[in-house]
Parts: sequence; structure tokens; C-alpha cells
Amino acid sequence: MPTSRELMEQHHVGPGTVSRAIGILALEGVLTTRPGSGTFVSATKATPNRPIDTGWQAMALADRVVDTRSLSDQLGPPTDGTIMLDGGYLHPALQPTSLLTGALVRAARRPGSWDRAPINGLAALRSVFATLTGASADDVLITAGGQDALSIAFRAIAVPGSAVLVESPTYHGALAAIRSAGLRPVPVPLDDDGLTPEFLEEAFALSGARLLYCQPTYHNPTGAVLSSERRQRVLEIARTAGAFVIEDDFARFLGHTPTVPPPLIHDDRHGTVVYITSLTKPAAPSFRIAAMVARGPVMERLRATRRVSDFFVSRPLQEAALELMSSAGWERHLKTLSAQLRNRCTALVTALRTELPTWTVRHVPGGGLHLWVQLPAGLSDIDITAVARRQRVGVSAGTRYFPAEPSAAYLRIGFGAATDEADLAESACRLAEVVTKS
Amino acid sequence: MPTSRELMEQHHVGPGTVSRAIGILALEGVLTTRPGSGTFVSATKATPNRPIDTGWQAMALADRVVDTRSLSDQLGPPTDGTIMLDGGYLHPALQPTSLLTGALVRAARRPGSWDRAPINGLAALRSVFATLTGASADDVLITAGGQDALSIAFRAIAVPGSAVLVESPTYHGALAAIRSAGLRPVPVPLDDDGLTPEFLEEAFALSGARLLYCQPTYHNPTGAVLSSERRQRVLEIARTAGAFVIEDDFARFLGHTPTVPPPLIHDDRHGTVVYITSLTKPAAPSFRIAAMVARGPVMERLRATRRVSDFFVSRPLQEAALELMSSAGWERHLKTLSAQLRNRCTALVTALRTELPTWTVRHVPGGGLHLWVQLPAGLSDIDITAVARRQRVGVSAGTRYFPAEPSAAYLRIGFGAATDEADLAESACRLAEVVTKS
Repeated sequence: MPTSRELMEQHHVGPGTVSRAIGILALEGVLTTRPGSGTFVSATKATPNRPIDTGWQAMALADRVVDTRSLSDQLGPPTDGTIMLDGGYLHPALQPTSLLTGALVRAARRPGSWDRAPINGLAALRSVFATLTGASADDVLITAGGQDALSIAFRAIAVPGSAVLVESPTYHGALAAIRSAGLRPVPVPLDDDGLTPEFLEEAFALSGARLLYCQPTYHNPTGAVLSSERRQRVLEIARTAGAFVIEDDFARFLGHTPTVPPPLIHDDRHGTVVYITSLTKPAAPSFRIAAMVARGPVMERLRATRRVSDFFVSRPLQEAALELMSSAGWERHLKTLSAQLRNRCTALVTALRTELPTWTVRHVPGGGLHLWVQLPAGLSDIDITAVARRQRVGVSAGTRYFPAEPSAAYLRIGFGAATDEADLAESACRLAEVVTKS
Repeated sequence: MPTSRELMEQHHVGPGTVSRAIGILALEGVLTTRPGSGTFVSATKATPNRPIDTGWQAMALADRVVDTRSLSDQLGPPTDGTIMLDGGYLHPALQPTSLLTGALVRAARRPGSWDRAPINGLAALRSVFATLTGASADDVLITAGGQDALSIAFRAIAVPGSAVLVESPTYHGALAAIRSAGLRPVPVPLDDDGLTPEFLEEAFALSGARLLYCQPTYHNPTGAVLSSERRQRVLEIARTAGAFVIEDDFARFLGHTPTVPPPLIHDDRHGTVVYITSLTKPAAPSFRIAAMVARGPVMERLRATRRVSDFFVSRPLQEAALELMSSAGWERHLKTLSAQLRNRCTALVTALRTELPTWTVRHVPGGGLHLWVQLPAGLSDIDITAVARRQRVGVSAGTRYFPAEPSAAYLRIGFGAATDEADLAESACRLAEVVTKS
């Protein structure tokens, strides 16, 4: 092999990159390094992947397919220059990267950071999340992100085969978790004021469900907020049905205004609500720390389910979350983020109303990362999404957010995933071309 | 409140500690900081924990208790000076702490480290684990530690209500995961050469199981290694039964000698083996990175189950694992660790044979972290464990490792959890006192 110096010059990379690449290739048995005499291509490289016969597996695996289609992009990798607005995370430009890195570096260096962490999470971190909800630190369970919390909650609380009420439309990640837990999602319609109590009551009666999954604040995908009049009603209806309510408060830190409606759990007097919020949304995709808050025996069930699943969340990540939330920079980041999201949201609404007057933005969200847009009659969200991708705009077909047949054709467009307002205006123009072309 | 300087002097701590404490208390609403004028105790602190009535929850939760007793220490927190040898992790003195911290710090600073990670894990990290098994990188799935891998495997592969064959005794974490997945562990006896093929064949026939969980290399708790004669037989029997074999290779990096037996998956020609190995054991409790290797449709099932559970493993942790395994220090650490474990193991065996001649160490393990000790007739492992704790030695009662009734009274004593050889000698003396006292 050429010397490290030669490789550095050839590929215009630093010494770290070269030694790391050589290290990995050596581990893979491709290269052999002989200290003193240099690096050599291994004579016999272990040849992986001999063809094997696995036909029999179908029998053992039976028909228990885990459907992740709604989670995965069906359109393949985007071409260069595509503006991807179909994701659920902040664009890197909105992520507090240096804040996160600083927090993790300090956490990694803290003595004992590689030791075990408590099963339910670091006490100090739990008490920070407790304050959000007026609960105590003992009512808090730290998880490795929101999806981890959802999957634990559905597996722990609901009896396999039973029904789970969900808003229709709702978050597709929750639908996937519900189905993979062997549960049946039962749709309950919602309007601009959130869940409709009459339908909710009826759905509990008809399905015998003992669990409701909902997003009362800046609902994904519609952006709706459960009105203050309905909050007590929803809790009473659940209480009467003897059911739990999973409150997915994913947008707690994504309000576009200084004041965000209080979580539903504030009004809970019977331990009905199992509350979930996450740091991933306002921080970054790989900052996978979330918290569940629940009172009563259900917390014991959640804690045990979590424990059997993966013991505890890696301590440095928990320490980093504590560092982050207790740093002055965090408050500043949240303020800036709020303004940036509001501006992006306004920019997208304006651009769409100008470029696509026949598309309906019925509700301008006060928080969150997405716009829920109804297409005029005759247009298919699936087709538009496919054509849009060829026009280099990534949007999500509304269909994937419905537990059953969609009520109409919608698109979910994420303004939080855009570089800036210009990108959003440009994407509206490209979408306008899509309509003329389809 | 006193000034930060005063607090630093009062409590003999640095400025970082003080500002962090104030930051957390401010988040909890206990303190209010007014820039310029100082820190004040909040007038009205949100009072959490109002009593609530949660009796109704029992109805909704039904009887699906998740039993974690075998996972938790029933004897409460140890008194000072207790030598705890009941854990499954390395003593901090054996952990490569600076190596881990360095790896995570570099990982945290790498551009894009906070971005999404691929669902199945970083390609470079997957190919490193692939080389261990002669598989390809596409056959590898990265998980957040070994328990995460086990719980995914049991949920993904076995039909709820069905039987899973396990060695008897076996790892109690696997038993907990099997039960919480709604499966029935069926014990198969093993001897010093590992699983006994005759019994395995019979167990498959009687139970109709389509899954076997085993630890062929340095079995936990017995330390047994599946003999080379039996390896092919075990695979053939599973193949004939149309069953999968989960090979838990937790001790891959914990051999006491330079050569460790090859994993079972090396001999697998039909995608029978679902292989699991972990970096947590040779690194540290919070270094929660493990890998699953499987060929054929089963990998699709595992990947989908993992994805719905928590999307992906935090990227900085995966980057750190790659940094660690491709660093020269890692090889050195593994060499040192191997020698240290061998010395500790020898020290414990010698001390026990001297102090407790009636206790039987039938098998001195060639790898792993534990010694499996049979007690003389008449002694109860439960009682001895309780009395031992009062004598300030923490050991594990053998009962917890048996899926059903134990074949005899055993203790599992972890030499990897000791500070040094002296600690192990001392613990043997304390155990000797236990016997005289009980």
C-alpha cells in the first residue's frame, strides 16, 4: 500500500481519516499492517456471503409481517437539488449542533459516565421533565427517543388483539408501533379543535378500547390544538371508559409563539394520562432522549417493559440531555427556533396560497414542523407526491397518516426541514409546475 | 441565595458544579435567576405530586405483569465495604475508560454526527461486525446493547404463546425477555460440553418449538463451551426442526486465552443462526452497542421490528464504537483484559477451593466473567446469598438462572466485577464465615 502521507496527498484528506480508514480495513481483514514495514493488502481476504438456502425460514417466521411501508420512503433516494420536506426532524440549519456537541463532550468526560444508569433514568434528568408536567421525578421514565416511548407504551398497556383509538389522521410512527404490538388502530375523526368528544365516546363504546393515543398540542399532521373546552370532556370520556390516554406531546418545544397550551396531563386527576415528550424534535435526530410521565401502577408496568427491552439508556446521552437543558444556551435556542419556525411556516403558507390557490391550507398551525394541505377534488396525493419528487420536491402523501381510508387527498409538507424561507418559496413553485404537468 | 463564589467555598466545589446545580434548580422552579441582581428562591414553587386515585388502572392493565424479579437485586442496597460479585459487567478498574471517552469525544465532534443514522446501523460499523462472523455488512443490524438485541429477536421471530428452548441454566435476562414476549421457555439440560443433542432433539419434538436460545461459547452462568463434536449436531437438529438458533455470543471478547472457539454461525449453511454479540461486556455498562447477524428473510423481520421499536441507534454512540474498534488501543485493551480475567478467575477458584473445600467448582471457565459453584447438599442458594450479603459479599443465587426448578443449589460468583485478586480472596474468606454462621 502507498504510505499514509501519499494517501493523504492522493485523496486530499487528513492523517486521522487515513489511519481510521486503514484501521477499519485491517479489522475487515482487507489490509494487514506490519509495524515498521508498512501496510499490505491481505493475501487471503475472508470471502463473506457464500450463497445459503433460507427458504425454510418462511415457515418458522409465519405470517407476522411487521409493516414499515408507512415509515419508509417509497420513492427511492432523491436526486441532487431536491428540497426534501417530508421528514419529521429539524433541518441541520435549525439544530443547535455546537450546543449538543459541547453537552456530549462534557458528559463523556464526567467521572462515572460509563457506569450503569438507573433503570428509570438519571434522577436530575427525571426531575427536569417532572417540572414540565407537575408530576414528581418518580413518575418519570427516560427512554431512547419518542418512538421508543410509544412502542413501550403500546406493548405495556394494551392487551394484544385489542383496539386502540387514534385521531384520524395521526402520526404514522404511532400507527406502525400499534400494529406491530398486535393491536388494532380505530380511527376517531378530529377537526380544527382536535378530537370530537361525541365521536370519541361512540368509539370507546363500539370498540371496547381501553386506550386512546392522541396529540392534543400541535397535532401531527394537522397542527390542530385540542380546545380548552374539550380537554376536560376527553379526560372524562376516557375515565368513564376506564381507559388510558397516551398524550404524545412531541411539539412541546416547537411552539411558534412564546406561549404553548399546557399539556393534558395538567388536568389529569386519576392517572389517566401517560405523557410522552421528546428532546429529539427541538435538538437533532440523533439526540435520542425522551421522557414518559405516568402515575399509579401503569408506571410500574412501563418501567418493567422498558427494563426487559434494553435495561437502561446509555448514561452519557442522559448526562448530555441534562447538560443541554440546564445550559443558558438551551433557552436561547428554543426562543430562536420558535421564531424561525413561525417565519418558515408563514413563508410556506404565503407561497402556497400564491402559487396554488386551489390547494387548501385550512389551518395555519401555531406550532410543530408541518403544514397539512388539502388537494382539490380529482387530485391524488400519491400521484402528486411521486410527480413532485421528479420535480425535486419531497412531500408526504396524506394517505400514510390515516389508519383506514383517507377522508380526502392531503399532503404533509414540512417547513421545519427546509434550509430557509427561499427554499420553501422555491418548493411551492416546483409544486405548481407539478400540477400543470399532472 | 449566596453568590456562586460563596457556594463554591461553602461546598468545596468548582464553578461548573455550582452553575449546573443552579441551572437544574431553576428548571425545576425552585430558584429564579435574575441576571445582574442574583439568584432567588422562587416565591411559589409548583407543588408536584397531588394525591390521585389510580385504583381503576388494575382493570385496564389486566393480568399481564412483566416479571423483572430475576433482574433485580432482592436484597436492597449493599452496606459500605460490600464486595459485589453479582453483576454482569466489568469492574471500572477493568474498563478502558479513557479509550471510551476519547472515542465518544471524537465521535461527538465529527460533522453530521447528530444527523439520522441508517436504520440498520452505520455501514462501516456493520462491516466490522460482519468480519467476526464471515457474513456481509448487509447481514448485520446494530442495536443498543445485547438486551435490546435479545428482546427484538424474541419478539420478531417467535409466535406469541409458543415455546422457546433454552439451556438450563441460562442467562436470566434472556428468560425475562422470553417471558415478556409472551413465550414459554422450555429447559434443555447441558453438561460441561454444552447442550446435550439427545435432549435437544427430544425437546424440539415435544414442544414444537421453532426457536432455540443458547450461548455456545463460555455459557452464562456455567462457562461451558459447546464441544466441536456437538456443534454440527445442534445445527442439524435445529435445521430438522425448522427452527432458528439465537446464538448469544456475549463473551466473544472475554476469552481468558488468546484463542476463543469460533462462533456457531461459522458452520451455518442455512441461515439457521441469529447471531448476537455486544461491545458492552468488554467496554463498559453504558457503552450500549451490540450487533445481530442473520441471513435471509429473518433479517428483514428483525430490521422492521427494530425500526418500529426506536428507529435507529444514536449516531454518536455508533461512531464511538467504530472509533473504539478501529483504534490500536482496543486490541491492547482486549489483550490486557484477557490476562486480567484469567488471573481473577484463577484467584477465585484457588481461594474457594482453599476456604470452602466442600463447594464444587466443577468447571473452570476459559472465558467470561463468572464462576458457577455447586453448594453441598443441604445448603440453600437463596439463604446463602442473603447471609453472604450481610457478611458484605454480593453473589447471585443459582435459582434465578433456571427456567424451572433448579437441578441443585448453585451460586454464580463474578470475578470480573472485583477490584482485584485480593478482593476475590477476601470474598472467599467472608463466604467461609457465612457457612459457619448458617
